[in-house]
Amino acid sequence: MQEPIQHTDEKADDQKDAAGQYGLDDEIVQNIQDAIEDGKTEYIKATLEEWHSADIADLIEQLRPKLRSSFLDIMEGRIDPDVYSDLDENVRDELVEEMEPAEIAAVISELEVDDAVDVLEDLEEEERQEVLSAIPVEDRAAIEEGLSYDEDSAGRLMQRDLIAVPEYWSIGQTIDFLRDTEDLPDEFYEIFVVDPRHRPVGTIPLNRAMRAKRDVAVRDIMDDEQKLIPVDMDQEEVAYLFQQYRLASAAVINPGGMLIGVITVDDIVDVISEEAEEDLLLLAGVSEDDLFETALDTARTRFPWLLINLFTAMAASIAISMFDATLEAIIALAVLMPIAASMGGNAGTQTLTVAVRALATKELTPANMSRILSKEMIVAGLNGSFFAVVIGCIAWGWFGNPLIGLVIAMAMVVNILVAGTVGMLVPYTLDKLNIDPAVASSVFVTTTTDIVGFVAFLGLATLVLI
Amino acid sequence: MQEPIQHTDEKADDQKDAAGQYGLDDEIVQNIQDAIEDGKTEYIKATLEEWHSADIADLIEQLRPKLRSSFLDIMEGRIDPDVYSDLDENVRDELVEEMEPAEIAAVISELEVDDAVDVLEDLEEEERQEVLSAIPVEDRAAIEEGLSYDEDSAGRLMQRDLIAVPEYWSIGQTIDFLRDTEDLPDEFYEIFVVDPRHRPVGTIPLNRAMRAKRDVAVRDIMDDEQKLIPVDMDQEEVAYLFQQYRLASAAVINPGGMLIGVITVDDIVDVISEEAEEDLLLLAGVSEDDLFETALDTARTRFPWLLINLFTAMAASIAISMFDATLEAIIALAVLMPIAASMGGNAGTQTLTVAVRALATKELTPANMSRILSKEMIVAGLNGSFFAVVIGCIAWGWFGNPLIGLVIAMAMVVNILVAGTVGMLVPYTLDKLNIDPAVASSVFVTTTTDIVGFVAFLGLATLVLI
Repeated sequence: MQEPIQHTDEKADDQKDAAGQYGLDDEIVQNIQDAIEDGKTEYIKATLEEWHSADIADLIEQLRPKLRSSFLDIMEGRIDPDVYSDLDENVRDELVEEMEPAEIAAVISELEVDDAVDVLEDLEEEERQEVLSAIPVEDRAAIEEGLSYDEDSAGRLMQRDLIAVPEYWSIGQTIDFLRDTEDLPDEFYEIFVVDPRHRPVGTIPLNRAMRAKRDVAVRDIMDDEQKLIPVDMDQEEVAYLFQQYRLASAAVINPGGMLIGVITVDDIVDVISEEAEEDLLLLAGVSEDDLFETALDTARTRFPWLLINLFTAMAASIAISMFDATLEAIIALAVLMPIAASMGGNAGTQTLTVAVRALATKELTPANMSRILSKEMIVAGLNGSFFAVVIGCIAWGWFGNPLIGLVIAMAMVVNILVAGTVGMLVPYTLDKLNIDPAVASSVFVTTTTDIVGFVAFLGLATLVLI
Repeated sequence: MQEPIQHTDEKADDQKDAAGQYGLDDEIVQNIQDAIEDGKTEYIKATLEEWHSADIADLIEQLRPKLRSSFLDIMEGRIDPDVYSDLDENVRDELVEEMEPAEIAAVISELEVDDAVDVLEDLEEEERQEVLSAIPVEDRAAIEEGLSYDEDSAGRLMQRDLIAVPEYWSIGQTIDFLRDTEDLPDEFYEIFVVDPRHRPVGTIPLNRAMRAKRDVAVRDIMDDEQKLIPVDMDQEEVAYLFQQYRLASAAVINPGGMLIGVITVDDIVDVISEEAEEDLLLLAGVSEDDLFETALDTARTRFPWLLINLFTAMAASIAISMFDATLEAIIALAVLMPIAASMGGNAGTQTLTVAVRALATKELTPANMSRILSKEMIVAGLNGSFFAVVIGCIAWGWFGNPLIGLVIAMAMVVNILVAGTVGMLVPYTLDKLNIDPAVASSVFVTTTTDIVGFVAFLGLATLVLI
């Protein structure tokens, strides 16, 4: 990764110890950390004055847990509420635990609804009720509605603030409406056009509205093709639509087809990185990003995968134990035994990772599955044969017995072919069964390649060598 | 993953065999495939009339390679040029290979510069020159400039079309300028304000410009804080800035600080999924998304990782061979041998995946490294001890020898502690050395856990049991 290049403007000198144009660096964090320990309250307040909330959140995450509360004491009441929504969930929970319900309510009232819901849903039920009752009633309804949608649904992502105008309005009326309305959303990219029953019928990108003459009817310049997002659509599906059709924003509708919210592409950016991160972590057997969790919680979330792996390792041991007489006769087999299993495991992981990703991006479908599976077989045949010859010759040379070379070569070809097949079929089948292929694929595939690797090698050895 | 919910509007019936609100489904692909085989030219043309270019690109990817050229013949000259930029690179190369330079030039001239550059850079040098010389000279310069930037740099992502106005203008002048200029960008979210030397000094979100009175000076309502992107900044860094500061768009500057382009958040969406996908694939030893590559190319890209794995498997075998006398004496050891190695490998992969992800999101830094490493040690201690007791008891029961149980338990604790340490230190160190931690971490970590697993187990067995 390239180092951020410093802004070359004359202003650059003023920006020392500002979070800079391009995020925190280690030196800044160290300086603030020292300042907290030395109690340099004024220096810290002055330094952080201009910081973006996301940088302050990063700073808090970087601080040692002990210094975090000192830091909050120093900043007393001057922390931008957005910092709480930018914070890592685990760190935020830790900070929120020390706050009174009234304090939490004050922070939450300042946040956008989707961010407020994020903060609230991590609280215990009882505390959540206390906090909710301390929130002004006009904000509370929207937050409670937000909490009522599924965690990963479009309803959670959407903003309720949007601009909707009737189709019989002119651009002039629309612009006057925008000028005269005090309480507009902070950011919006397009104007929605709705029918009398408040169902979306079109959209007008802001740049088009700006260029149009005042007397043009909105109906005449709107785009009438738009992708509508049902409020209960899964966020992964929403992200897919935004990527596929390069949307800047999209209307969210309730089951009656009425416009109830809008999702913008900047909300989707986080979903896309979350979903990709989730696949990455799940494939490695980590249920979620646990960097800022306590050691005990981290050990707990990683435990199930290790437990499953213990069973699969035991299964491999049992497979080996069936051939103990063969192993006793030729100890060289114990030495070579892990090779075919390990190569198969790697080849299987390559295939399954490509398959998991292709399923997530909807590139692997029933229409091309058999074609791509045949391709995997050819790939496995090519690489499998090559490595079989190499390892066969090495084993022959090492133990002076061509038959040992033959056995490991054959086991290698078999296992890499099996790896390619299960690496593709397992995630595909899980996906068809509506099970996330990232969760369980690795276990199935590596268990298979381990057992096939040991059994093929030791079984062939028993047939050929004994 | 949830199935896309169909749009409930009355229009829904008209949309059969349209790509639908929510992308292709298998039935549609099958219908088109049948229609191509049956030569139903009119049906296909009529069906695809309203399709989005991204859906047509997906359709082409799904078709059997033989049908792809029949499909292009049917659509003769009616394929939206955007389809070519939406296509998977490998499929696009295949189609472009069959086209004449003049045809390619005609397609490219219709694309935005960044997309045109994408298509062009995959061509052979000679063909690229031919195509370039067939492109009208006014488009050619911009494309050649685009090609001159590094592949993963901001210069490649940016659009050159943008709206920039001098700071002394009023909003009224700005709006008149927008109304009178024919050749505006299709999409833009904000207006840039520049000084006389064309350096960016501020931005005005479109919605604010729309609401402002005509006689307000742009200088008075612009945001003067903005993140400027140097043209040679790496795209990963650019994506980080957009995510961190929730940017909708940002100005790109040349080394002289002059405004030369704009990057919008929808360009970043693709970068974020590409970068996350890259980490996922690299960790599994696949250099790039190879779903639509030929079998030979796929075998070639997966080969290096398997070769490296062969060396590490050989290293493990050599480690085992040092203890062949011990193995010969107690064959039970050969049976249990893979367990400690495999558990260590899994624990190491968990830690390293979290570390790779945390480095990519800049959450793991020198400021918190030692704290997080200590946490990993505690996690490894907790899970390692638990699994040591379990496997120790199982081995004791299985082989009726408490010492075998003791040996495997000790080997397990040692290997899981080593796994936690190397799983964190290896990616961190690679990152400090400016090597992408996703590429090489797995090899180092699993080689270490394999060798430590076998040596600890067999070494302790030699000490304790022989």
